[in-house]
Amino acid sequence: MTDTWQEIAERKRQERDSRIPKEWRLRRAIPSDRFNLKDVPRESGILTQRELDLTENFDATAHLSGLLTGLLKSVDVTTAFCKRAAIAQQATNCLTEILFTDAITRAKELDAHYARTGKPIGPLHGLPISLKDTFKIKGYDSSVGVAAFCFQPATTNSALVDLLLELGAVLYCKTNVPQTMAALDSHNNVFGRTLNPANRLLTAGGSSGGEGALIAMRGSVLGVGTDIGGSIRVPAFVNGLYGVKPSHGRVPYAGQEGGALPGANKVGMEATAGPIAVSQRDCEMFLRVVCDAKPTGLDPEVLEQTWGQQASLPVGSGRKLRIGVARTDGHVTPLPPVQRLMDDVAKTLAAVGGIEVVEMDLSSFGPQIVKTFNGIMSIDGANTWFDHLEKTGEPLSPWLSTRLKRRPQKKIDDVRKLQAQRTDIQTRFLSVWKESGGYWRSSTPSTAGEDKHLDLLICPPAPHPVAAIDRWNDTNYHSMFNILDVSTGILPVRTFSEKDMQSEVTATKPLNGWDKVNREMWTGFDRKTYLGSALSIQVVAPRLQERRLVEGMGLLDEALRGLREESARRSKL
Amino acid sequence: MTDTWQEIAERKRQERDSRIPKEWRLRRAIPSDRFNLKDVPRESGILTQRELDLTENFDATAHLSGLLTGLLKSVDVTTAFCKRAAIAQQATNCLTEILFTDAITRAKELDAHYARTGKPIGPLHGLPISLKDTFKIKGYDSSVGVAAFCFQPATTNSALVDLLLELGAVLYCKTNVPQTMAALDSHNNVFGRTLNPANRLLTAGGSSGGEGALIAMRGSVLGVGTDIGGSIRVPAFVNGLYGVKPSHGRVPYAGQEGGALPGANKVGMEATAGPIAVSQRDCEMFLRVVCDAKPTGLDPEVLEQTWGQQASLPVGSGRKLRIGVARTDGHVTPLPPVQRLMDDVAKTLAAVGGIEVVEMDLSSFGPQIVKTFNGIMSIDGANTWFDHLEKTGEPLSPWLSTRLKRRPQKKIDDVRKLQAQRTDIQTRFLSVWKESGGYWRSSTPSTAGEDKHLDLLICPPAPHPVAAIDRWNDTNYHSMFNILDVSTGILPVRTFSEKDMQSEVTATKPLNGWDKVNREMWTGFDRKTYLGSALSIQVVAPRLQERRLVEGMGLLDEALRGLREESARRSKL
Repeated sequence: MTDTWQEIAERKRQERDSRIPKEWRLRRAIPSDRFNLKDVPRESGILTQRELDLTENFDATAHLSGLLTGLLKSVDVTTAFCKRAAIAQQATNCLTEILFTDAITRAKELDAHYARTGKPIGPLHGLPISLKDTFKIKGYDSSVGVAAFCFQPATTNSALVDLLLELGAVLYCKTNVPQTMAALDSHNNVFGRTLNPANRLLTAGGSSGGEGALIAMRGSVLGVGTDIGGSIRVPAFVNGLYGVKPSHGRVPYAGQEGGALPGANKVGMEATAGPIAVSQRDCEMFLRVVCDAKPTGLDPEVLEQTWGQQASLPVGSGRKLRIGVARTDGHVTPLPPVQRLMDDVAKTLAAVGGIEVVEMDLSSFGPQIVKTFNGIMSIDGANTWFDHLEKTGEPLSPWLSTRLKRRPQKKIDDVRKLQAQRTDIQTRFLSVWKESGGYWRSSTPSTAGEDKHLDLLICPPAPHPVAAIDRWNDTNYHSMFNILDVSTGILPVRTFSEKDMQSEVTATKPLNGWDKVNREMWTGFDRKTYLGSALSIQVVAPRLQERRLVEGMGLLDEALRGLREESARRSKL
Repeated sequence: MTDTWQEIAERKRQERDSRIPKEWRLRRAIPSDRFNLKDVPRESGILTQRELDLTENFDATAHLSGLLTGLLKSVDVTTAFCKRAAIAQQATNCLTEILFTDAITRAKELDAHYARTGKPIGPLHGLPISLKDTFKIKGYDSSVGVAAFCFQPATTNSALVDLLLELGAVLYCKTNVPQTMAALDSHNNVFGRTLNPANRLLTAGGSSGGEGALIAMRGSVLGVGTDIGGSIRVPAFVNGLYGVKPSHGRVPYAGQEGGALPGANKVGMEATAGPIAVSQRDCEMFLRVVCDAKPTGLDPEVLEQTWGQQASLPVGSGRKLRIGVARTDGHVTPLPPVQRLMDDVAKTLAAVGGIEVVEMDLSSFGPQIVKTFNGIMSIDGANTWFDHLEKTGEPLSPWLSTRLKRRPQKKIDDVRKLQAQRTDIQTRFLSVWKESGGYWRSSTPSTAGEDKHLDLLICPPAPHPVAAIDRWNDTNYHSMFNILDVSTGILPVRTFSEKDMQSEVTATKPLNGWDKVNREMWTGFDRKTYLGSALSIQVVAPRLQERRLVEGMGLLDEALRGLREESARRSKL
């Protein structure tokens, strides 16, 4: 008799838990009325003072500067993050696969190599990096939280895994995802739900939600997620982190386990892989290192273009940096605290020398993109997922149970039409970057004959603050940039304050059902739940302009420092 | 009552012919037993001595050096090529749309601009460029030789047309294609058949066959074709010209009329646009100018990567250039003259200092790629084309009539599988470039630990010499590189000589039906027909490495000069 899905899931959790050494287990259970979990590692007594320092006070770039020069040992950094990840797991349920033993062995080998040769083996020498469960690592499952996929260890590495290893990284854990990856809370029947470290009542995001929680707990300093409709950016946003969704072709994506059948991404839409990090410069470092490693030999869809071969922002060119501000996607109107953030950001940027803020109207894109995105995402009619689940009789997770149905696969002619719609949208969006395109609502007077161009665009990462568990509603603020295949990232600005609670929704009639549900996250909800949660912006650059994007994120990060510091000061009062 | 397809076609030809001024019409019909048509312009008495000189003795780069410095007037160059194109049309039936009046008006405007400002309007200032009929030019048809598409002038320009105009080019004619574009002889019911200027008995190629014939007649010095399975490279080969099929994303392709419904290229395969030219440096110039114009604003699928941002060949790096030689695709064995050419080329290259020749075995790719390519090309089951044709009751052209059938559209799941096969092939092919990949059959001893890489690959452009009319058989030597989406070009080496006629096919049993038909182009055929026809090689670089490709074509062109000159000397004996 084959095992039930419950038995498989139980065994899988036991396997995972057994890989946490006894001495790294919490001595006391976390009380269920404790909402903020971020200090659990510090209070646990498991980490030494140095391990607390290593995991809390440095970003990946800082760690690398120690590792590459021999000032830091990989075994020390790796052990510290393994221990902290073990605690993060016990606090937030963020891990799927635990590779601590292998990781520490590798770290020691890397240290030995350095001691022997005086040289690092690559630009990521000794740095522990966490990965979303969809990445395949030889000998470990990529179960993505589905019982039918458990206990089937990968026999090959994903392309990016091979690359990261070649560059010297230490892989030490993989992180949780939602069932089917098509939800924005990371909950599945095998591993259960990942919690938001800042507030258990709020979502940890998805589908790279395990990454988000792990990094927010500082159980990792740099993680890699994947994104087909917000799956890097949602967890980055809700956990107050930095994250970048590159365009297709920038970071190797080959050899992932995403539950889809081979080739499905080619007829539908491509997911892309990108960093989730604690600093902007870590996003830049990750992308630079990957591009400069010329990863074209690992994945036929990756471009050969080093970081230096990518265009840079025209800083120091004499002209102001031009940043478009889009307040709404026209599909769901942002709630008052989101509007307030965008106001603060636009005002702050306008006051900075060297930046010109351009008000944009992109409201005609939202409704069209929602339709096309939903169409493309439902090409398979979820048949493959239902097939996977039915193998063990596994049910849908609660949030999906009202949303996912087995439907007929689309006909090729309908898919063709959807792809044509997508190309039309991409073509129309090219005009957004140009003043002549008709989407600019403000700008300084033009020099005669010059058609000005935006350098970057900013917009909300969602029409609401960080949602409560299973309350995420609309994905279009993310998925529109997947349809467009542009480069986009999340920049944390400040946290939700008492003042943010005060404004009311003013529009009279909701635009549609999504807009109505969005309002219920404000009007029919205890707004205090949002206090202290992250408020972030989304930064957008044209397709495959990751270098411009992260450079811009760096400039904005600096320009918005005042807002962040004021918010931090207030939250301590 | 609506017109019959015959009436429409008749009117369309009349429209075209009426656009040739009387004084540019041939005074005498060309006798039907005259096979080589290349001297018709010179003998016609229509071109002045200077016009003959302008059209025969310079490549596009040379013309531009005159046009950009004001030494040449666009109106002179344009008029010369309009006149010669008119004659080429009368000799080979290569044109579809004639824009001479507009072109000469534009040339005068460009000259006036130069006279007024002392400056060219762009890097292609005043250069006449011919285009395949699939490119849309406002006010002109893109009938692609189908009655149902006639007399429906375009209301927008293709993206590349806008770009070429912005860069200063003069567009003066469009060129003939095969019905449905899916044949390798350019014959259709509206315009009829385009002839090979070098030999009427041989094919002019397709689907950019009108371009091939026009440029071979020197009725154009630079043309743009498109290629989904050889449509740039076949006409370049059979007309003894240079041509480059870039990877998808390099040259703007948006806004073409290819007869397919919108989005079909996204679920199936992308065609790409590229130059057909009389010199290697013109291919380079075209690609450089297009890339440096940052065409990302016109086509959402084009990359932002200037020529300077693309990797260059490692010439002068101290190591030899490494060139792989693939003798067969394993699907159809090349006939003796093609084998002989490859032998000559390999030997000549091996004797050149600075080049290392690596014998390759790619025979495992052919059969797999043929299956995948044919599958992808038949996703639509030709339904769209039959719909177009049936609107006017137009029949299939003879060659297609035994090959094209209306079949059910493929199911999305089958398309998914085909796309997965394509990705598998692309992934496997990544190993071809590396010595460790297992496809190298010869090489010099490796430096310890180094995994050597090929810089370029060369192979035949077909398993046979230039085919007789309607005898083209196998397309895999071209289409394999469309499946792979790599950069590839045609380099003419020499012409078919008496000596090439002597060897016999030695293999005992044909590999398959295609291989059998291929042999019949040698064993059951008057080989004298091939005398004087072009023998060329195909040069291949990895995906999106157009710069390395054309640089390599330049080096090979130089290295093979001896073979070319010897051949030219012999053919004059």
